[in-house]
Amino acid sequence: MVSSLKEIVIGSPIASENAHHERLSKKIALAVFSSDALSSVAYATEEILLVLAVAATHYGQATTFKYVIPISIAIAVLLVLVSISYRQTIYAYPSGGGAYIVAKDNLGTTPGLIAAASLLIDYVLTVSVSIAAGVAAITSAVQGTHYEWIADHRVLICIMFILTIMLANLRGVRESGMIFSIPTYVFIFSFLGMILWGLGRYFISPVTVSTPIDLSKMAIAEGYSPAPLSLMLILGAFSNGCSALTGVEAISNGVPAFKKPESRNAATTLIWMAVTLLVLFLGTSVLAYLYHVVPLQNETAISQFARMIFSGPFKIFYYVVQAATAAILVLAANTSFADFPRLSSLLARDGFLPRQFANQGDRLVFSNGIVILSVLSSLLLILFDGDTHRLIPLYAVGVFLSFTLSQTGMVVHWWKERGESRVHKAAKESRLDASIRPEASTEGVDAARRIGAVTEIADWKQSIVINALGAVATLIVLTVFIITKFIHGAWIVVVLIPIIVVMFRSVKSHYNQVAEQLLIKPPYKLRKLGQTVIVPVSGVHTAVLSALEYAQSISKDVRAVYVSVDEKLEEKMKADWKQFDIKIPLIVLDSPYRSLVRPLLDYIDKTDRESKESLITVVMPEFVAAKWWHHFLHNQSSLFIKGALIFRPSTVVTTVRFHLKR
Amino acid sequence: MVSSLKEIVIGSPIASENAHHERLSKKIALAVFSSDALSSVAYATEEILLVLAVAATHYGQATTFKYVIPISIAIAVLLVLVSISYRQTIYAYPSGGGAYIVAKDNLGTTPGLIAAASLLIDYVLTVSVSIAAGVAAITSAVQGTHYEWIADHRVLICIMFILTIMLANLRGVRESGMIFSIPTYVFIFSFLGMILWGLGRYFISPVTVSTPIDLSKMAIAEGYSPAPLSLMLILGAFSNGCSALTGVEAISNGVPAFKKPESRNAATTLIWMAVTLLVLFLGTSVLAYLYHVVPLQNETAISQFARMIFSGPFKIFYYVVQAATAAILVLAANTSFADFPRLSSLLARDGFLPRQFANQGDRLVFSNGIVILSVLSSLLLILFDGDTHRLIPLYAVGVFLSFTLSQTGMVVHWWKERGESRVHKAAKESRLDASIRPEASTEGVDAARRIGAVTEIADWKQSIVINALGAVATLIVLTVFIITKFIHGAWIVVVLIPIIVVMFRSVKSHYNQVAEQLLIKPPYKLRKLGQTVIVPVSGVHTAVLSALEYAQSISKDVRAVYVSVDEKLEEKMKADWKQFDIKIPLIVLDSPYRSLVRPLLDYIDKTDRESKESLITVVMPEFVAAKWWHHFLHNQSSLFIKGALIFRPSTVVTTVRFHLKR
Repeated sequence: MVSSLKEIVIGSPIASENAHHERLSKKIALAVFSSDALSSVAYATEEILLVLAVAATHYGQATTFKYVIPISIAIAVLLVLVSISYRQTIYAYPSGGGAYIVAKDNLGTTPGLIAAASLLIDYVLTVSVSIAAGVAAITSAVQGTHYEWIADHRVLICIMFILTIMLANLRGVRESGMIFSIPTYVFIFSFLGMILWGLGRYFISPVTVSTPIDLSKMAIAEGYSPAPLSLMLILGAFSNGCSALTGVEAISNGVPAFKKPESRNAATTLIWMAVTLLVLFLGTSVLAYLYHVVPLQNETAISQFARMIFSGPFKIFYYVVQAATAAILVLAANTSFADFPRLSSLLARDGFLPRQFANQGDRLVFSNGIVILSVLSSLLLILFDGDTHRLIPLYAVGVFLSFTLSQTGMVVHWWKERGESRVHKAAKESRLDASIRPEASTEGVDAARRIGAVTEIADWKQSIVINALGAVATLIVLTVFIITKFIHGAWIVVVLIPIIVVMFRSVKSHYNQVAEQLLIKPPYKLRKLGQTVIVPVSGVHTAVLSALEYAQSISKDVRAVYVSVDEKLEEKMKADWKQFDIKIPLIVLDSPYRSLVRPLLDYIDKTDRESKESLITVVMPEFVAAKWWHHFLHNQSSLFIKGALIFRPSTVVTTVRFHLKR
Repeated sequence: MVSSLKEIVIGSPIASENAHHERLSKKIALAVFSSDALSSVAYATEEILLVLAVAATHYGQATTFKYVIPISIAIAVLLVLVSISYRQTIYAYPSGGGAYIVAKDNLGTTPGLIAAASLLIDYVLTVSVSIAAGVAAITSAVQGTHYEWIADHRVLICIMFILTIMLANLRGVRESGMIFSIPTYVFIFSFLGMILWGLGRYFISPVTVSTPIDLSKMAIAEGYSPAPLSLMLILGAFSNGCSALTGVEAISNGVPAFKKPESRNAATTLIWMAVTLLVLFLGTSVLAYLYHVVPLQNETAISQFARMIFSGPFKIFYYVVQAATAAILVLAANTSFADFPRLSSLLARDGFLPRQFANQGDRLVFSNGIVILSVLSSLLLILFDGDTHRLIPLYAVGVFLSFTLSQTGMVVHWWKERGESRVHKAAKESRLDASIRPEASTEGVDAARRIGAVTEIADWKQSIVINALGAVATLIVLTVFIITKFIHGAWIVVVLIPIIVVMFRSVKSHYNQVAEQLLIKPPYKLRKLGQTVIVPVSGVHTAVLSALEYAQSISKDVRAVYVSVDEKLEEKMKADWKQFDIKIPLIVLDSPYRSLVRPLLDYIDKTDRESKESLITVVMPEFVAAKWWHHFLHNQSSLFIKGALIFRPSTVVTTVRFHLKR
């Protein structure tokens, strides 16, 4: 029954051989891999405004919020740097260069694990932040009578979204082009349209759109109190805005999913994504500035200016923008549902996470990772009350830590490979290979061509400079993050990462210890062992007789053991035994304290001492009840005895079940 | 570790032979058995006032509350009737005549079960009501600054009391004379003192004590709204006051605990108890009337007049009264902790409750009953917010239903025995017995003398009239209860009783069915059976080799089965098998859906069909982790396989454990 329920919800199992590896065109890949990065446009600008708002009462709206423009430009510059950096990773790791792999390969296990820990944290945060922001886009559009209700239930709505995404992923929704393309391109084009329309409208008739906003309803960043402008404040706003960069690394992880030549296509797509993100993010910041948007508690910044831009007969476009925003945010959360399980399966295969994370479920997906991610992100939403602004300070610390480790790893990578280009290396490997397998030679040339290394990466020195620049820039930003956002929540991540790394380490050390204990060298001759079988009996009935028959079938030395707690019952037992004429000796044990387990264990100890040569098997007669509630009606003494024997070495427990029919 | 923690809290086990049966003198028995009955003095009068208060705003204080006197007298008359009735039960059932036994013996199983259900419900309510009232006595005494805090946390305080009583009972506090005598006699004498002092003081100088009370603070019974006096209201007040009678039956259940002659001593003690209860209850009602007490939300009625009576230098006696009240209420709750487990063990022995209730724990007490009672009464206190007044409408329905059934049972009892006195009967039985055992003859005479039947019960006609009177009176009261208190909570009990009876019946029917399925007629010749042993293997390591050795020791037909989910691993497995030179055939099963369980089950099915003559044993190699958290690091596939095999008939599962040391 459980299994058929599972089939309805999750679908019937998929055979291993049906594992498919759809290759993506650039257009579709852009949609598949960029939803995480692009969706941050929905909240990045607003998070900058929220920090600036701290100073708004001191300097007034106009003076304070103009800083959104230079801050956004600084973030855009950082974006360009990081994108160029990652473009190099794409060529160096055509099989997928996640921060964990790059850092582990080049910097060692611990940096790799630190990167992995930060990524896992960030995947969880991506789900929480994206879903919270998506729900905020919906609540913003539903101003009016229903607002209160929806706002009060936002955590519940968030969790419903997560559950839906979880189920979809457990069913194994593939990165099927259409599902991703439509919302992503609708988002891109509706935002581009809004930016153009908004700019045009502003410069044609600026008066109509600039409505005064009630400053008393203004929201400011969590944990701040009104204060004058300062460098810390500007840096804080910058840190918050850097959430725009999350997800930029996605393409570099997914190179093998591209059509051939993989690396070149992936690199092109990365550039396209970076450009799109740049335009949308800067455009959003400019609109927010021009339309004098201030952060409000009950409406997002985008919703505010979109409402002003698409007024009157164009109102429909406002709803399109909000719907597209919500949709791309849900997609962004969905990418974590691919990334988190994939990274945990890598970690599990390397022995740093429980093995269960490496198993693919019925539908060829890493089910355990999917469920854990859903639980953690839901918990986070409950703890932070489904509020994007309160989650943002935790966000991006992990992303930039993994950026830094990954870029530093790339610097080391180029240094190790200095003097030999990828082409040489590929050719060399194929030659080595060719000495064993003749057909490998052509493969080598083919591989070199495929990874597109011939023309792209001319010089290791240039590469090392670019990645070093990326590493330094992201390290500086990371430091700024930790300084400006530490007390607002970043400390949680700073504390969590070492804890998770220690956890990885102890899991690994356990697996190593188990492997050591299980290790045995061939050849091995199986020993011949004798058997002493003990059958605890409670009376003479069908279940006990079956157990005795079973015991006789595995050994000649069988003893029925009866624990006596009541003299009358003991008499009856002895009489029955005689009457049934059972040829097996009945051993009666006294139990002065009415315990069933204690005398039995003592007897086993005694038998063990007497017959050193043979194993001891305890054959337990056990009922299987016909209905679940019947279990409460039986003493479960079999369970207690089995529990007590678990920790007794060299005693084997066998359960002979008697299936009750009613 | 768990077991040593248990020893600290509960104490070390007590041997069965130390079960002691202390015989009680009348003075001590009065203390042991009467705390439940006497303690109801603490709330019975107030519960009458609460209902009368409904009409107080219509008629004024003086007119309304005078009805407390006639109502109390009516209850006192009922008390006399019930006591005389139960006095007869004591003689008729010298081995203890609880309502369950009397009703079952004389009226049949269903009436017996109805009585049992009502008693169980009432034991739970006794705990809840007594503890709530005890805590109210404490909060009343702590007027002033701490009042708010204590009142807010009363549910918590109640539960702490219940936990303490539970632990004491799990340790097995015996009905040791002193523990019970001191609080009971302090209660009796302090109340008698208060009544005398209060009456004296009132008639010497009535002016000083009659302070005006703020009627706006008056509490009225839950679920009522102000209304004029009516018959229904008077009957409602009467019903509430009848809670004074709860516990009167206690002595008749405990006759065997008395010193010889048991019945006569028990009967005398019952009369003493009834007289004491009568005096205290009437005295309390008279004082409440004289001192113009009205029910208040934050102070009990007794606390109000005790405060007035013991003013100035005598204030210390006020605290004595409150402390004695709280103490006897806690004792009353404690009696349920003896009664509930005893009754459930009787029911369990008769097969109407799960067998676990019939087991005595380490400390010779019925631990399961004690724990269940604590949980249920705590739940009730949480649901009803620790408020005595809200619990009272549920209370006493069960008591009076069991009174009625018990008295009706007695009527039938006398009718069956008409014409032969207990003496004749005992003599007759002993003669019958004497034909088998010669020494029984003198026992018969001795028994007849011991039960004191010679002089006490002269005439069955007189007996039948008394019990019939008792039955009719309690039936009328029961009807009044149900009518007046139905909507205020009595419906819960009315609904619960049939549900519990159905539950009793289905438990019994399950046990009967099991017994039928297990029944087998002697003699029985154990069959000789063959064995096919299947060992699921995941690799070649120490744990698997131990399992294979074990398998070889129980059968010659052993098959190692490997489920392949990955081609590379399969190759390695086959190579290892060859290298280790294991003489057991390795069977490799394909698993297109990556399931371990499915292919294994299919293989077992196949083997089962092929070898019809022999049993199939699955020998599972299994790790036992050294630390609890290590369990999460293993696949638990053994658990899944065992789970799947539970429901497969005629397949035996044997676990060969490998104990990891680290």
